[in-house]
Amino acid sequence: MNDVVEAVEGANAEALARMLAGDPVLVDVVGAGEAIPALGEKVIGHAGPPVAWREMCGPMRGAVAGIAVFEGWARDLADAEQRAAAGDFTFRPNHDFDAVGPMTGMTTRSQPLLVVENRAFGNRAYCTINEGLGKVMRFGGNDGEVLARLAWLRTRLGPALGAALRDQGGIPLKGLVARGLTMGDEMHQRNVGCTGLLLRALAPALARTCPDREALAEILAFIAGNDQFFLNVAMVMGKAIMDPVRNIDGASVVTAMCRNGTDFAIRVSGTGDDWFTAPVEMPEGLYFPGFTAADANPDMGDSTIVETVGLGGFAMAAAPAVAGFVGAGSASEAALTTRAMSEITVGHNPEWTIPALDYLGVPSGIDIRRVLETGLAPTINTGIAHREPGIGQVGAGVVRAPMACFADAARALGHRLGVS
Amino acid sequence: MNDVVEAVEGANAEALARMLAGDPVLVDVVGAGEAIPALGEKVIGHAGPPVAWREMCGPMRGAVAGIAVFEGWARDLADAEQRAAAGDFTFRPNHDFDAVGPMTGMTTRSQPLLVVENRAFGNRAYCTINEGLGKVMRFGGNDGEVLARLAWLRTRLGPALGAALRDQGGIPLKGLVARGLTMGDEMHQRNVGCTGLLLRALAPALARTCPDREALAEILAFIAGNDQFFLNVAMVMGKAIMDPVRNIDGASVVTAMCRNGTDFAIRVSGTGDDWFTAPVEMPEGLYFPGFTAADANPDMGDSTIVETVGLGGFAMAAAPAVAGFVGAGSASEAALTTRAMSEITVGHNPEWTIPALDYLGVPSGIDIRRVLETGLAPTINTGIAHREPGIGQVGAGVVRAPMACFADAARALGHRLGVS
Repeated sequence: MNDVVEAVEGANAEALARMLAGDPVLVDVVGAGEAIPALGEKVIGHAGPPVAWREMCGPMRGAVAGIAVFEGWARDLADAEQRAAAGDFTFRPNHDFDAVGPMTGMTTRSQPLLVVENRAFGNRAYCTINEGLGKVMRFGGNDGEVLARLAWLRTRLGPALGAALRDQGGIPLKGLVARGLTMGDEMHQRNVGCTGLLLRALAPALARTCPDREALAEILAFIAGNDQFFLNVAMVMGKAIMDPVRNIDGASVVTAMCRNGTDFAIRVSGTGDDWFTAPVEMPEGLYFPGFTAADANPDMGDSTIVETVGLGGFAMAAAPAVAGFVGAGSASEAALTTRAMSEITVGHNPEWTIPALDYLGVPSGIDIRRVLETGLAPTINTGIAHREPGIGQVGAGVVRAPMACFADAARALGHRLGVS
Repeated sequence: MNDVVEAVEGANAEALARMLAGDPVLVDVVGAGEAIPALGEKVIGHAGPPVAWREMCGPMRGAVAGIAVFEGWARDLADAEQRAAAGDFTFRPNHDFDAVGPMTGMTTRSQPLLVVENRAFGNRAYCTINEGLGKVMRFGGNDGEVLARLAWLRTRLGPALGAALRDQGGIPLKGLVARGLTMGDEMHQRNVGCTGLLLRALAPALARTCPDREALAEILAFIAGNDQFFLNVAMVMGKAIMDPVRNIDGASVVTAMCRNGTDFAIRVSGTGDDWFTAPVEMPEGLYFPGFTAADANPDMGDSTIVETVGLGGFAMAAAPAVAGFVGAGSASEAALTTRAMSEITVGHNPEWTIPALDYLGVPSGIDIRRVLETGLAPTINTGIAHREPGIGQVGAGVVRAPMACFADAARALGHRLGVS
């Protein structure tokens, strides 16, 4: 038995070492069909573990209908819903394609995708570009305004960002995120610092490569007008860092957490690409004026990759302003969440530190054994979508990963290790 | 005697009300000679209270020689020093011209000046544009590289910023600074958040108004490459806010603090434009590699206007990362400085709040009576220049305002009020 514990500890040390060695660089923006050939006609990538149309929540259905119209696979939203019910579309988790997507996480072949390369391991990961706040597709929005914005991302913003990134040879993200942690960001519900740092890094190359002054002004204004622009970059960075941590024999470290609005799921390094799922929970949070908890959809999105890599709720102490926004207690108590998450991780990240905790690194490498021993489930900072399709974001809050995922994963890992 | 106390309290309440009512907007960049006609041939504005050439410290002399060459009033640095010694130049405090300048604070007629308008009161204030870090004129640098950068600010950056600001109708600063306080800035030794926010606000208008793509890229890269770019904006904002607080009968609130490298000086609302001076102190701080306290010049610059308005050392709790940089104790102790400064101010600013202190406003309105009662001199976060001309910045630290200024000011105010 001690041998097994030692093997797990050794495997977890390797898992943490790979996480900390990650060198994520935002290198390009490319068309999804080019980056991911499997994203063909009528194939729709979505957030979370696998889910069928009949099990999908309202905003996920709304987004599916919207993206089908956007891709030209349906005449209108009603037609799209009929086709979806008739089995016309193939639904696949984004994680199948080295990709992640926020909230509903729609990923289809004509959308532009951010590309992050983990230069320490050579792998690449992908994510769509953040659309902005309010009525947007990731929160289930699907009307003409939402589709027009997606079209602008496809024809204008995506190609311009790609050209700028190629021109400057990419933007290393590890140091940028380190700075963001000193600027009150936790990279999930607060990205105002990193969005500014990213714009500072991008703007000169955008100016050099974008030939049209009006288009350039529009692009700069779009990025500057969206404090959450960096969220999708943080997500694809998280995916690029965590993928090389997969498939370490015996490791009890979580390599992905995600939700599709129906189920929550985790992957653990020592159990490969199996998903351990449980019904997703409702966030506890604060609502925008005019909305209440009765409007809220259960938790959703691949954005929990941010917590998986030690940011988001795990870095709450860096972002006291978030604690109030997500309803996680007073700002002065933000440190408590980070301290609690330190109890369920293998270690701390010495390059991503929090000044207010005298430069303690963010808690990194969620160990499913510690989650079960302490009863402390990972704390996730999240946006809240309206439960009906077509409406959008109604609030923000905190949600806990369901304990059942961790218990199931521990059983499966134990089985692989020959213990029960 | 109680009547006098009541009168002072009432006057101080009015002083704080004017501070909080201030509505500073960055509206333009204009040539100094145009904004300040008194800045004529061979007139040199400098930081701090009045100072003669023979009393000037090394970096101030270095900057004077450099700016005289830059303006074409001397052939070279040696010629400039001879002319200065011969009385060829007129030296005037920047504060005489509604202006402020960091460190040596050289302000002369051909330089471009940031213009902040306080829209609540209609007054304007001026400050040069931040040159960047290291060997720069504000730290006494004066060689060809320093002068070439000043020439680029004059011909390229200044006009472009002015055009962008006029195009967009100015950038309101009160809310921007409020956001900066949630991003780890205290606006004196840390401006990384506000610099990003300013670039986000400026970039679209710059793209619209700057016809030359290479010049635009160069301008964006210059701003993006200087985390302290916002410092001069914070300073001119502070000057614009504090000027309407001057000349309130009986008010014991400080309206300006500044230093010329030889003397420290304060102005108090109830004693008009008199300067109360004392020998300036040495900062206690941390030095860049290769330098020590033996290289340090005494404290210098008009940048203490930032503390006068409740930021800088007064907002240390917002910026735990600064505490370490300036050697003011551990990051987790940053709140102590803000708590201490709360003991010497009339009130707090409800619009400039600090998340980590559960949204306590920054301590605002330094009351010379409380300084003397508590023995707590204002804490100032500052850069440290090399004591020899021509070298530049060697470190950063914390310095206290000399108590003698406050004692002298209190005597003068008492005399005006008929008490002793």
